[in-house]
Amino acid sequence: MIFRERMDVAKAKEIFLSEIKGMEKTETLETIASVGRVLSMTVLAPRNVPHYRRSAMDGFAVRSVDIIGASPTNPVILQVSDDVMEGTCKPVSTGDYVPDTADAVLMVEDTIMIGDMIEVRAQVHPGKNVGEIGEDVRKNEIIFNKGHLLRPCDVAVLASLGIKEVAVYEKPIVAIIPTGNDLLPLPQDDVPPPGKTLDINSPMIGKYVEMWGGTPRYCDIVPEDETLIEKAIRSNLDADMIVVSGGTSVGDRDYVPAVVEKLGQKLAHGVGLSPGKPTALGVAKGVPILCMPGYPAAGLVALFVFAKPGLRKAGNIPHIPETSIKAILSGKIMSREGYLSYARVVLENMFAHPLMTAGAGILSSIAKADGFVIIPENVEGCEEGSEVDVVLIE
Amino acid sequence: MIFRERMDVAKAKEIFLSEIKGMEKTETLETIASVGRVLSMTVLAPRNVPHYRRSAMDGFAVRSVDIIGASPTNPVILQVSDDVMEGTCKPVSTGDYVPDTADAVLMVEDTIMIGDMIEVRAQVHPGKNVGEIGEDVRKNEIIFNKGHLLRPCDVAVLASLGIKEVAVYEKPIVAIIPTGNDLLPLPQDDVPPPGKTLDINSPMIGKYVEMWGGTPRYCDIVPEDETLIEKAIRSNLDADMIVVSGGTSVGDRDYVPAVVEKLGQKLAHGVGLSPGKPTALGVAKGVPILCMPGYPAAGLVALFVFAKPGLRKAGNIPHIPETSIKAILSGKIMSREGYLSYARVVLENMFAHPLMTAGAGILSSIAKADGFVIIPENVEGCEEGSEVDVVLIE
Repeated sequence: MIFRERMDVAKAKEIFLSEIKGMEKTETLETIASVGRVLSMTVLAPRNVPHYRRSAMDGFAVRSVDIIGASPTNPVILQVSDDVMEGTCKPVSTGDYVPDTADAVLMVEDTIMIGDMIEVRAQVHPGKNVGEIGEDVRKNEIIFNKGHLLRPCDVAVLASLGIKEVAVYEKPIVAIIPTGNDLLPLPQDDVPPPGKTLDINSPMIGKYVEMWGGTPRYCDIVPEDETLIEKAIRSNLDADMIVVSGGTSVGDRDYVPAVVEKLGQKLAHGVGLSPGKPTALGVAKGVPILCMPGYPAAGLVALFVFAKPGLRKAGNIPHIPETSIKAILSGKIMSREGYLSYARVVLENMFAHPLMTAGAGILSSIAKADGFVIIPENVEGCEEGSEVDVVLIE
Repeated sequence: MIFRERMDVAKAKEIFLSEIKGMEKTETLETIASVGRVLSMTVLAPRNVPHYRRSAMDGFAVRSVDIIGASPTNPVILQVSDDVMEGTCKPVSTGDYVPDTADAVLMVEDTIMIGDMIEVRAQVHPGKNVGEIGEDVRKNEIIFNKGHLLRPCDVAVLASLGIKEVAVYEKPIVAIIPTGNDLLPLPQDDVPPPGKTLDINSPMIGKYVEMWGGTPRYCDIVPEDETLIEKAIRSNLDADMIVVSGGTSVGDRDYVPAVVEKLGQKLAHGVGLSPGKPTALGVAKGVPILCMPGYPAAGLVALFVFAKPGLRKAGNIPHIPETSIKAILSGKIMSREGYLSYARVVLENMFAHPLMTAGAGILSSIAKADGFVIIPENVEGCEEGSEVDVVLIE
């Protein structure tokens, strides 16, 4: 339990992320199914938008020369027709094709209908209310760069250009390896016997992996046996990331970081994170490995701090600034100098109520917490009444 | 195109939301599959956590009375045993069962192993490092209230309590009705003929509906015919919300709001929103109806302003404070007084670059925009260099 080394979180994160390469494997998806995915190709417009001269208004396609000087006091009369020629106009709705012979669209509000004629009460400039071909999007123009995260509105843009399929990066596969002699797989019909714990970390990790753009691969529970842990890690070196839950403390039974060192390189073991100190980081055959504490609250913090940015990098997901909510702390938060501390809080109106359970194993505090107040290493605690930034727990 | 009325956005939203009732229909899901869903039941703990006296440390279960006064200079010797009795101790790992005869766990760091004896170099208080039964979660305690949005960590908490299924609210069904004579369904093999437009709003609306917790129901394109629009709306009055795209302007072909008025009540037609002015809102047989402009950029804003909060209310999804990113405006934004204006901007480092395309139909600006700067009705534009809040486009 006593860590000789204790690496700075920022440094540990930097080293860990530097070992992670963005996915290169790609897959082709139907455009509509690509929401939330990252383009592995630069998309050029295959056609002009509009691809025809398009009316931007309901009104009449006209030759602007025919109505120069028209005004309410000096109206011009035009004949309504199917063609636009000298002295004629054609009714058009928004989005309609504007005949080549017309150079503007007159708004319906500036006209009065008189039988099959209109009285024109305003003049228009050439080009007025006409969307020229390619005015919005020019053929072969870059629409989205490689690496763009596709939103629903982007999918609509792609669809409007007639693009039916796009190439996106495959989702990183994250192998989830629960370790521990005391773990039982879910679900269990009965209350586990004393000393036994349900493996709740696997689904928690898996669901966060999905949320952060990866595909979880659930592995069987591995007993605390160096050979078996090694075998489990070895057989998942085809994954894009491995998360091992449990077995990271410096107790006599904690083999995971040792196995990582054997198979590849241990990057950190023991980080200045609270809760989450026993976190270990490594890499083997190019696969980043996060060994997170088995205690759910500590594991949760390790996931947020290391797995989330790691997965985003692996999935080539563009950086999205982290958002937080300002709140007033309703009570003091204690923290330890030298540790980046994630204090669980409940949000209520503009207040953040600290949860007074420091223990990493305290399940009830996870259920209750809305977010974290993150306290830097060089600060000791947070006073009641101070303004804090609360990062919501997703 | 000229709206006699123009309702304030806040008022329109309030009236619209007041017509929306939260879902009452529920369904039972496997706990693991319930991430992102809203509990329709209050969850009580069916068991204590821990459900046995649990060691919080690696060390030795002891009787605290046996080691009163122990210190490095005054160690106490205990016999290692399978039972804890006067003068004996039992090795325990974190999470292990602590025998009833022990009242504390001594950390391994405070001991020195000597054969089958330990030298104890610290005393412990009764209860130290022992998680008592129900200390974390007490049986029948409320774990989650009805209406709680389930996160991955919550699902882990539920699973740890042996809860295999939960009751959640059904997702609201949103019927999406595209209208327009000029619309063609997706996908199309060829470039549409002049005057024809692909129905890209349906997938855009549908994907946002999914993102915001609803289930889209895609309907066929309805021509601009009052009878057919009425039929389409009528046949979807079993949905929880209807979004009609297009046909909301006051042109001669815009029947949708009239049909809404005929079937139920028109709540607003024409709102002080830019882009998005022609938005209409209504309710028929208790089903809220959003008639959004067919122009994608205007429709997008109408979706964010009305459909998103409406869907969240319909789905009983708890309020999550909107987050935004501070940025410095790199150019002036023009806006019209009296309109709540959603200006599209590109984010680059700490700068927000306004997109100089005001048109609601401008597709390229949607593709480029990272977010909106929202300018209140009583403000006219935003100066270059001012600090703005950018709401990201999801």
